Amino acid sequence: MQRREMLKKVAAGAAATGALAAPSIASAQATLNWRCASSFPKSLATIFGTAEIAARRVAELSGGKFNIRVFAGGEIVPPLQVADAVMNGTIECGHTASYYYLGKDPVWAFGTTIPFGMNYRHFTSWWIHGGGNELLNNEWYHKHGIHALLAGNTGGQMGGWFNREIKSVDDLKGLKFRIAGLAGQTLTKLGVVSSMIPAGEMYQALERGTIDALEFVGPYDDEKLGFQKVAKFYYYPAWWEAGAALQMFVNLKSWDALSKENKAALEASCYEANQAMMAKYDFENPPALKRLIAGGTQLRSFPKSVMDASYKAAQEMFAEVSSKNALFKKILDHQAAFQADSVQWTRLNEGAYDSYMGTIRR
Amino acid sequence: MQRREMLKKVAAGAAATGALAAPSIASAQATLNWRCASSFPKSLATIFGTAEIAARRVAELSGGKFNIRVFAGGEIVPPLQVADAVMNGTIECGHTASYYYLGKDPVWAFGTTIPFGMNYRHFTSWWIHGGGNELLNNEWYHKHGIHALLAGNTGGQMGGWFNREIKSVDDLKGLKFRIAGLAGQTLTKLGVVSSMIPAGEMYQALERGTIDALEFVGPYDDEKLGFQKVAKFYYYPAWWEAGAALQMFVNLKSWDALSKENKAALEASCYEANQAMMAKYDFENPPALKRLIAGGTQLRSFPKSVMDASYKAAQEMFAEVSSKNALFKKILDHQAAFQADSVQWTRLNEGAYDSYMGTIRR
Repeated sequence: MQRREMLKKVAAGAAATGALAAPSIASAQATLNWRCASSFPKSLATIFGTAEIAARRVAELSGGKFNIRVFAGGEIVPPLQVADAVMNGTIECGHTASYYYLGKDPVWAFGTTIPFGMNYRHFTSWWIHGGGNELLNNEWYHKHGIHALLAGNTGGQMGGWFNREIKSVDDLKGLKFRIAGLAGQTLTKLGVVSSMIPAGEMYQALERGTIDALEFVGPYDDEKLGFQKVAKFYYYPAWWEAGAALQMFVNLKSWDALSKENKAALEASCYEANQAMMAKYDFENPPALKRLIAGGTQLRSFPKSVMDASYKAAQEMFAEVSSKNALFKKILDHQAAFQADSVQWTRLNEGAYDSYMGTIRR
Repeated sequence: MQRREMLKKVAAGAAATGALAAPSIASAQATLNWRCASSFPKSLATIFGTAEIAARRVAELSGGKFNIRVFAGGEIVPPLQVADAVMNGTIECGHTASYYYLGKDPVWAFGTTIPFGMNYRHFTSWWIHGGGNELLNNEWYHKHGIHALLAGNTGGQMGGWFNREIKSVDDLKGLKFRIAGLAGQTLTKLGVVSSMIPAGEMYQALERGTIDALEFVGPYDDEKLGFQKVAKFYYYPAWWEAGAALQMFVNLKSWDALSKENKAALEASCYEANQAMMAKYDFENPPALKRLIAGGTQLRSFPKSVMDASYKAAQEMFAEVSSKNALFKKILDHQAAFQADSVQWTRLNEGAYDSYMGTIRR
């Protein structure tokens, strides 16, 4: 950053005095050193590592002339203030989940996921070919001084760890559940007492009974935090995180100042990292699930009555937010239209195949 | 190619006479112009376009110094001889389906798919993180003078167009079905008369009753070829192509001669193209399926008895091939082990979610 600023000043001064014949070429060849603040700790290796995959590839592609140093959550920017730091130019870029900022405005949610939202393949297709990239960047991120690049997905998450069974909607009443954002707002309608507890304090809260349930990510990450030791029932699916997408937020001025080659390098590397992160979870989650089951964890699916009530509550929440927020409604409708056709195709063909293969023991 | 050959000779000559101080640097900065033969016609826009996505990105990343010109199937190399042309160095690279070459050796199938094989996410994860890339390149492609880069996937294909219903295994007896490769060998065990008819002649063959059924890709591509006009029943799923992966085959000497930056550019671009192709099909297939249904196409799933008989026949086929081909057995077991855990996780969590969402009408 300092070096870059210095080079800029040197180039500007040189151009003013005419001392350098081609300052633009000199600047294009200069080494760029960017800082990327991640919202995630190194212990969430798959998510944190996604920014590193992108950064490593950018360095390779540029022959070491465009370097991005990735800092773990909290090292240089508090985890939930990464977007702000990118907006105000403290850092050139940050790897984060857009829905962390929905307290400012619920539109931030669409970059990650919403209740009963798109799965990984639907979201990726919506972003790349369905107009999602243009819609979110033009109507939202650019207006906040951010250029957003798709850079990761957790895939479908698990519904979380419960210290008792959920057999009906009645069982949700008074349930102290660590769940935040739009899902928390939705479940509140069904009597859940939702709360946001920092990741580092969740285990203890569940162990001591301060909460009855919590949701985190999926088998691989959950197992590492040890929730299987303090709760017996592991529910699925997380209808609130059917596929949580991550972005690389880039300060818009920093983005605009990049050369064509460097823009291409960062964009391609983030797309590659998006795929690599999903592939990593698809590699790590199946054996972790097996280990959890072998260790005594009881798997449970949310009953259809609970899914139906949650879906209805989510639609009410969407209607309330939409009535006060036109852009929220516009993007919601855009995602919903894409999803409506997609779920039919998925269920029909690959759903039938995956379902059949799930019955086979080789 | 000609320019490159010329540059090589110039560099070699210069080195021999000592006329150039640093031929390796001069060569690193020279423009590379490669030819890529696709196995696919331009009419298969999604598949053909995948090689163009990769080529365009490589050109951007290299600032126009590494250019790959993509030729449609048959323009410079016959569609089913792309691998041979890459191996013998006629072209630097080719975009093709590895299983086109299984007539030479069934091991070629694993780069694409096998009966009851992995879906898109499983295959991608196996390739990137599960050791698939290393296994196939080290034990197979490199020994044939090819470096293979993952570059595309059709996702789960449809089971094809049938002029009559398949209600039991008996209905397969004597069925004249355009289906090739290991699936053809499998179905032969159940009485199917399998045949390979070129894509351009399939429509007429089905219309005239030369065949009773054919399989091609999925709703988007099938609709363009008009099969809905000559067959009523559209079956799913294609257990023989649960996700057909494509590769960019690169001549191994050409690959080894690339600079680090150019290797990174080609690899990252192919990974990006892999994701973009799946996303394109996920964008195009759902509306195409809706149009087909609106036009009167009757969807049918293969009965469980037919799936079970096909699965059993496939295992027999695998055992026969494995008994004569140790490497086939090794890779088969490697893929099967990865798939066995993966299908359970997929069915459990995302399967439950996708299935629920398929029942919703917003």
